[in-house]
Amino acid sequence: MLVDLDEAGLWEYRSTYKAPADFDEFWQKTLAEAGEIPLDVRIEPVETGLRTIDVYDVTFAGYAGHPIRAWLRLPRLPRPPHRPAATGERALSGVGGREALSGVTSERALSGIVQFHGYGSGRGHALDDLLWASAGYAHLLMDTRGQGGGFAGGDTGDPVGSGGPTRPGFLTRGLESRETYYYRRVFVDAQSPFLCDIRRATRITDADPYHELAAYLATHRTSAESAFTTLGYFDGLGFAARAAAPAWFSAGLMDGVCPPSTAFGAYHAYAGPKHIDLWSYNGHDAGGPEDQAAVLSAFNSLLQEEETL
Amino acid sequence: MLVDLDEAGLWEYRSTYKAPADFDEFWQKTLAEAGEIPLDVRIEPVETGLRTIDVYDVTFAGYAGHPIRAWLRLPRLPRPPHRPAATGERALSGVGGREALSGVTSERALSGIVQFHGYGSGRGHALDDLLWASAGYAHLLMDTRGQGGGFAGGDTGDPVGSGGPTRPGFLTRGLESRETYYYRRVFVDAQSPFLCDIRRATRITDADPYHELAAYLATHRTSAESAFTTLGYFDGLGFAARAAAPAWFSAGLMDGVCPPSTAFGAYHAYAGPKHIDLWSYNGHDAGGPEDQAAVLSAFNSLLQEEETL
Amino acid sequence: MLVDLDEAGLWEYRSTYKAPADFDEFWQKTLAEAGEIPLDVRIEPVETGLRTIDVYDVTFAGYAGHPIRAWLRLPRLPRPPHRPAATGERALSGVGGREALSGVTSERALSGIVQFHGYGSGRGHALDDLLWASAGYAHLLMDTRGQGGGFAGGDTGDPVGSGGPTRPGFLTRGLESRETYYYRRVFVDAQSPFLCDIRRATRITDADPYHELAAYLATHRTSAESAFTTLGYFDGLGFAARAAAPAWFSAGLMDGVCPPSTAFGAYHAYAGPKHIDLWSYNGHDAGGPEDQAAVLSAFNSLLQEEETL
Amino acid sequence: MLVDLDEAGLWEYRSTYKAPADFDEFWQKTLAEAGEIPLDVRIEPVETGLRTIDVYDVTFAGYAGHPIRAWLRLPRLPRPPHRPAATGERALSGVGGREALSGVTSERALSGIVQFHGYGSGRGHALDDLLWASAGYAHLLMDTRGQGGGFAGGDTGDPVGSGGPTRPGFLTRGLESRETYYYRRVFVDAQSPFLCDIRRATRITDADPYHELAAYLATHRTSAESAFTTLGYFDGLGFAARAAAPAWFSAGLMDGVCPPSTAFGAYHAYAGPKHIDLWSYNGHDAGGPEDQAAVLSAFNSLLQEEETL
Amino acid sequence: MLVDLDEAGLWEYRSTYKAPADFDEFWQKTLAEAGEIPLDVRIEPVETGLRTIDVYDVTFAGYAGHPIRAWLRLPRLPRPPHRPAATGERALSGVGGREALSGVTSERALSGIVQFHGYGSGRGHALDDLLWASAGYAHLLMDTRGQGGGFAGGDTGDPVGSGGPTRPGFLTRGLESRETYYYRRVFVDAQSPFLCDIRRATRITDADPYHELAAYLATHRTSAESAFTTLGYFDGLGFAARAAAPAWFSAGLMDGVCPPSTAFGAYHAYAGPKHIDLWSYNGHDAGGPEDQAAVLSAFNSLLQEEETL
Amino acid sequence: MLVDLDEAGLWEYRSTYKAPADFDEFWQKTLAEAGEIPLDVRIEPVETGLRTIDVYDVTFAGYAGHPIRAWLRLPRLPRPPHRPAATGERALSGVGGREALSGVTSERALSGIVQFHGYGSGRGHALDDLLWASAGYAHLLMDTRGQGGGFAGGDTGDPVGSGGPTRPGFLTRGLESRETYYYRRVFVDAQSPFLCDIRRATRITDADPYHELAAYLATHRTSAESAFTTLGYFDGLGFAARAAAPAWFSAGLMDGVCPPSTAFGAYHAYAGPKHIDLWSYNGHDAGGPEDQAAVLSAFNSLLQEEETL
Repeated sequence: MLVDLDEAGLWEYRSTYKAPADFDEFWQKTLAEAGEIPLDVRIEPVETGLRTIDVYDVTFAGYAGHPIRAWLRLPRLPRPPHRPAATGERALSGVGGREALSGVTSERALSGIVQFHGYGSGRGHALDDLLWASAGYAHLLMDTRGQGGGFAGGDTGDPVGSGGPTRPGFLTRGLESRETYYYRRVFVDAQSPFLCDIRRATRITDADPYHELAAYLATHRTSAESAFTTLGYFDGLGFAARAAAPAWFSAGLMDGVCPPSTAFGAYHAYAGPKHIDLWSYNGHDAGGPEDQAAVLSAFNSLLQEEETL
Repeated sequence: MLVDLDEAGLWEYRSTYKAPADFDEFWQKTLAEAGEIPLDVRIEPVETGLRTIDVYDVTFAGYAGHPIRAWLRLPRLPRPPHRPAATGERALSGVGGREALSGVTSERALSGIVQFHGYGSGRGHALDDLLWASAGYAHLLMDTRGQGGGFAGGDTGDPVGSGGPTRPGFLTRGLESRETYYYRRVFVDAQSPFLCDIRRATRITDADPYHELAAYLATHRTSAESAFTTLGYFDGLGFAARAAAPAWFSAGLMDGVCPPSTAFGAYHAYAGPKHIDLWSYNGHDAGGPEDQAAVLSAFNSLLQEEETL
Repeated sequence: MLVDLDEAGLWEYRSTYKAPADFDEFWQKTLAEAGEIPLDVRIEPVETGLRTIDVYDVTFAGYAGHPIRAWLRLPRLPRPPHRPAATGERALSGVGGREALSGVTSERALSGIVQFHGYGSGRGHALDDLLWASAGYAHLLMDTRGQGGGFAGGDTGDPVGSGGPTRPGFLTRGLESRETYYYRRVFVDAQSPFLCDIRRATRITDADPYHELAAYLATHRTSAESAFTTLGYFDGLGFAARAAAPAWFSAGLMDGVCPPSTAFGAYHAYAGPKHIDLWSYNGHDAGGPEDQAAVLSAFNSLLQEEETL
Repeated sequence: MLVDLDEAGLWEYRSTYKAPADFDEFWQKTLAEAGEIPLDVRIEPVETGLRTIDVYDVTFAGYAGHPIRAWLRLPRLPRPPHRPAATGERALSGVGGREALSGVTSERALSGIVQFHGYGSGRGHALDDLLWASAGYAHLLMDTRGQGGGFAGGDTGDPVGSGGPTRPGFLTRGLESRETYYYRRVFVDAQSPFLCDIRRATRITDADPYHELAAYLATHRTSAESAFTTLGYFDGLGFAARAAAPAWFSAGLMDGVCPPSTAFGAYHAYAGPKHIDLWSYNGHDAGGPEDQAAVLSAFNSLLQEEETL
Repeated sequence: MLVDLDEAGLWEYRSTYKAPADFDEFWQKTLAEAGEIPLDVRIEPVETGLRTIDVYDVTFAGYAGHPIRAWLRLPRLPRPPHRPAATGERALSGVGGREALSGVTSERALSGIVQFHGYGSGRGHALDDLLWASAGYAHLLMDTRGQGGGFAGGDTGDPVGSGGPTRPGFLTRGLESRETYYYRRVFVDAQSPFLCDIRRATRITDADPYHELAAYLATHRTSAESAFTTLGYFDGLGFAARAAAPAWFSAGLMDGVCPPSTAFGAYHAYAGPKHIDLWSYNGHDAGGPEDQAAVLSAFNSLLQEEETL
Repeated sequence: MLVDLDEAGLWEYRSTYKAPADFDEFWQKTLAEAGEIPLDVRIEPVETGLRTIDVYDVTFAGYAGHPIRAWLRLPRLPRPPHRPAATGERALSGVGGREALSGVTSERALSGIVQFHGYGSGRGHALDDLLWASAGYAHLLMDTRGQGGGFAGGDTGDPVGSGGPTRPGFLTRGLESRETYYYRRVFVDAQSPFLCDIRRATRITDADPYHELAAYLATHRTSAESAFTTLGYFDGLGFAARAAAPAWFSAGLMDGVCPPSTAFGAYHAYAGPKHIDLWSYNGHDAGGPEDQAAVLSAFNSLLQEEETL
């Protein structure tokens, strides 16, 4: 059943989120600091028994140089040139404007895709998620630091703790300041636009992970404004208003985890070319394999255009 | 938490299931009838945008000639001969002892794997489940007739209804006789050993699908013996005692859907070479990707032995 | 608690349902085909041990001649004439405009009532539901084909399957076309106006049975319009707009199974004389025994008027 | 699923309940006091619109003369003598050894059945429960004092409160002594053997009503022995060991409300002729309509024997 | 998540409750009758092992002289005069305009606080709730008659029963008339303003205790108007409009037990000086310890003002 | 209901836990390192408005010098000497064998009690938990590092993260080695014997916090032995076998969070004088206020003995 605004309401909805005045300054400084740290990529081939895909275990230096893990999957394409050149460069060079990866010899570059799983999950198993490599892309499936203890497992810790008390979960770690907040480290490592229209989300759903914030604020009754001051620097709506790349959104009208109005809050704020698919009877799964098919088709078209040029 | 016997108890447990005297006769007759029907395979290539795997939409004549759907996924192997010959033959020829498939031209045969998803699911989306083809196998992912309305979707109907009343679900369809029971049609189409130690299962779990039987018998209070007479011809333990092929079992000690004792009932009855992995903290997911890795490794070893011969 | 519009909102609500242009044509053709099939009524007395009511096990030919079961309960009225004549005729002759039943000898006709139980149920046990016969009516309590595996049990199968995949339950059987849809068969057999304002219902409740459709469409993401094209021929609102007989509606304001706005959608569309009772604190049970008392009173008044004429 | 001992265990199980030494003395005194109070029966005909059954609203003086309500349903039997004589006498004369009811003129006595609904319910609606009268019996359906606010409604209050604190529900009312306990009043009014093997029940189920006791004792941590001293005078096992009339038990092996071992505790203790039916897949509903059919058949046989004498 | 109006809506909301015309007359008569009964206070010291607080077990005559229990906690203040004089007088003299308590000798009067726990609870344990005495106040923690079987236990019975049927719980006891309603007795004993905007509450929450009324009315379908006639004399909004003392309200915006709009109904109706705190992420716990700190601070300020005068 | 062994079974139960051979060595080394760090106590008076108790906000250097918070509550005893001397010394000197606290001037020492709240909680609010100070003890209520985001709030962070992935919660932080495990830091800070008979607990309950481990191991399927190697150094049973101080255990037979057999595992292993109270109808609350009263009485007796010496 619908758990949020209906479709007409979603198109009209606009969030009350306002980015803090020094949002850009904060992130420029953060990224500048991150840029100082050598990427230090290590790539180890993984013995999987697969015959059309090579899987590599990637470790690179994320926020503060902490080791971050990912799977790199490269297709063995049937016709030469069938090994990628400097694939990792493209895949990772989009992340935080940092230096290039090397170490996978290849005859020719492949286009790359960077992917994250949902909250709680890590990069999963080496044998999972073969779609993008099978489609001919270099596929980097990232761990999210600290997560990966449930669902799709992970292998990356978050060696930083929290200066204040926390509720089980990740959303209240380091919430005492924008500098110490957990997602500052995660976003520097490279993260998809998680957490959108946060204040609204904490009021219209009882599902984790947004519930972590609501439950924390139920105990820390006088901390709400301080918490939202920190969160203002991490709300996806702030990033959306600064985006230029084409974006493809997908929302389930029955999504009680990330209610669709919070996705629309981001969509409406998005400054780049944008597209949104709605799935009337879906929850957090949204379009599922239909999303994959649509995105693959869009990627293949983009690629063809590029190759034609 | 544990929901069934602990590990020591599982190794000692033996089911009270007894196959009916004419179990073999019933199935011989059923398969003989099925063998009369031409397989009538149709194979249509599917446009997926993948570059290392070709996906085909397969339709063949199942029980009573009803059209059954499946995905056939074939790897484009990087070095010649990279197209399979008569792949479908091996994959489908194991099914019901019926005639050979043709239509996918190929230079060389691939070993094949036939897979089914769990209860309620069908073959899913063409882009799902790329593991086995990526590993170099011809992979036939079957629909289960009538199912596929939830979870992994499907495209195959079951044009036969039920002569008696049913509870929502599939386990009570045609339960009035062994001839009309839904799983007679499904097993003739080709089905993995679903439904094991059925009577015990209906008493120790409230989870669907076994609960369908318990709920039906709660209303049809005087039908239990008649129902179990029919089910006796479909219990996996009956097939297990007649098996000769090597089998790999996997069970989660916290599985409340198919409680581990029912898997052990089948394991202990299994007449062929057998192996079972136990997962102490897992439920119905059992070993998950670890199961896949172990089975892939075992398959690759078998294949290597065969190729050496 | 309220789960839908409040009372004021219900009186203002109007559904967006639009009957397809050939709604009448489809049903005229369907009923004409049904009229070709002889009713073929069989009536067997049932030994119940009751002394004021005779119960008969009725079988007649429903859609496509499939056998449909019902209980016929006739009162042994204390003063002569105390046996009904041709009772079944009136009871069954209202069903699909078909031929008359015979076989229960009687001195005088009784007025008859045809009743159905709710979704999932069948005609129940011979000893159940003695109200209407005790009130002096011939009472025909129908099975619903295929159902009756839970709640009130049943004895009638649905020998037709589905050409497409289905979700456990009955609402997705044969959904691929109006000709094959399960409720085409049920409505021809004779069925109370089930399924009202279907599209709205699938969006405002998570309870079965409407949830069956929502769950199916969550997996079959691109099938919604096709599904609602089929369902348009079966929505109670289409029938309501064509009705002429007096109708008595009853709705619970806290009904989460059939939300009251969907009943009001039908009420507002209803073209015949109409009455609706609202029950402020009730759910799907609505007025329960108060509904029975009110309907019995209304029936008795109608009967007295008829007898006076 | 099974929630208690399996069938073999039930046959072996014996309760640890021990009746207090002065159990008989307590009840003899209680009944002697009750016998002092005139029954004071008032019977008002109810206008129901039924034609085969007459319904009367009965009020009589229960414990301490408090007014207790019941429905008396009498069949209008088709052949003379079709009015009962002194029916109420037999029905009510079994209750507490008290004086006879009069006021329903009748040509001939009917055998009578006294019935109670389950916990929380009262006598329900005048139109409900027509089975026994339809079978030719005088049927007295009792209210339970104070109850009837949910499920089947009631009309009888319990004008006595509690000298101590209570948890919502009826099981802790007056628990401070055997003299003030709520069920002393109820059993004097006339009550079926509710509450069996109470101590065990409070430990093996979390369902109401036994949970009321467990929850009370969770707060009143030092009151358990005092509470069970009171309850010892009300446990059905105490009455069972003193019974002489034939008894028909019925138990659902999956009953989580009144777990089957507590019914077997009473069955094994029962001193009169006894019979028990087990329903393998049923919960608290046990045999449902099958129980009714079996009991009706047994009653009719007894009646025939009597009439033959 | 929000379960009621948002903050803006709460400030605008006004209840539709209308006090009955003879509300004042009813309560004047009720209190006049109560004033006839001697207070009959008994105070027993309790051996607790505490060294800064003395705890007394208080019993006084409540409605109709029934014994009501409370804990009286008096601080042993570090500097003389450290024993209260006639403390109980002030604490109890505010209750129902009745006569004074005596028996705790003291050198000097302490200001007193009368407290009640929430629905279902009693005065709890002698060692609980030490805040107010530790803050220097005489603290009277009341039992609520009949309650105290769960949560914080109690020791006070309600020796009055109900003339009509009831649902487990206290809200339907004696509902048949304003004279017999349970809360008439409780409010005479002394009770904080429980039950506000009752009709709305029964429609917007399914949580107990308001659900008790909704569930009762679901069975007693024709009793709603009669019930609300009785309840009209007990709704906190009736008292609020007659209040003169300063009041401090606190509401959780996520309170599903006593939804915030019902608290705002009372707040808006309140005729005396008033203050309300809102807690955005809290449920029924509202401000919890922050409420306590704020109220203590307010009390201390009031006290200082008084002492200055 | 019972969720674990019954009382007889609990007395017979013995855990299979075996402490690792170098358990003592590990903890000696850990405590020696901790002893190197100055305690660095800071004590700030808190303005609470209380008149019989002084509350201080304590910060001291815990594991690795991280700041740990606690409330110190000291009674203002009514008769001189009414200020404590060096109270904190005794309270804190029991913690980790470290150096003495000073800074609260006092005329005379008070006996001290160190308390921790349950999992997820911190020290709560300054106004909470006044029992022990009211009873004349110096009461130190500790934060648990990192926790305190829910239930009773806290103010202490855990600045150390985790080198590996974690599941939301605290039980999987740093699980990769005994040196990095979260509870190594907590136990050095000072912690009550949390986590007992861990392996059994993970198999017999699905409640958090033990479920955190089970859920983590469900995803990290091959890590169970490594995890239990780490956990072996933190199981309360290891400490119990090395204890010499008198211990007072309390267990609820219906405790599904810390099942009673795990408490008995510790009780049976306990090497010092020991006592255990069982609460037949309680869950995780066990004896609640009765536990407090019993412990207070025991403490007062001990104190009196000491004072007599």
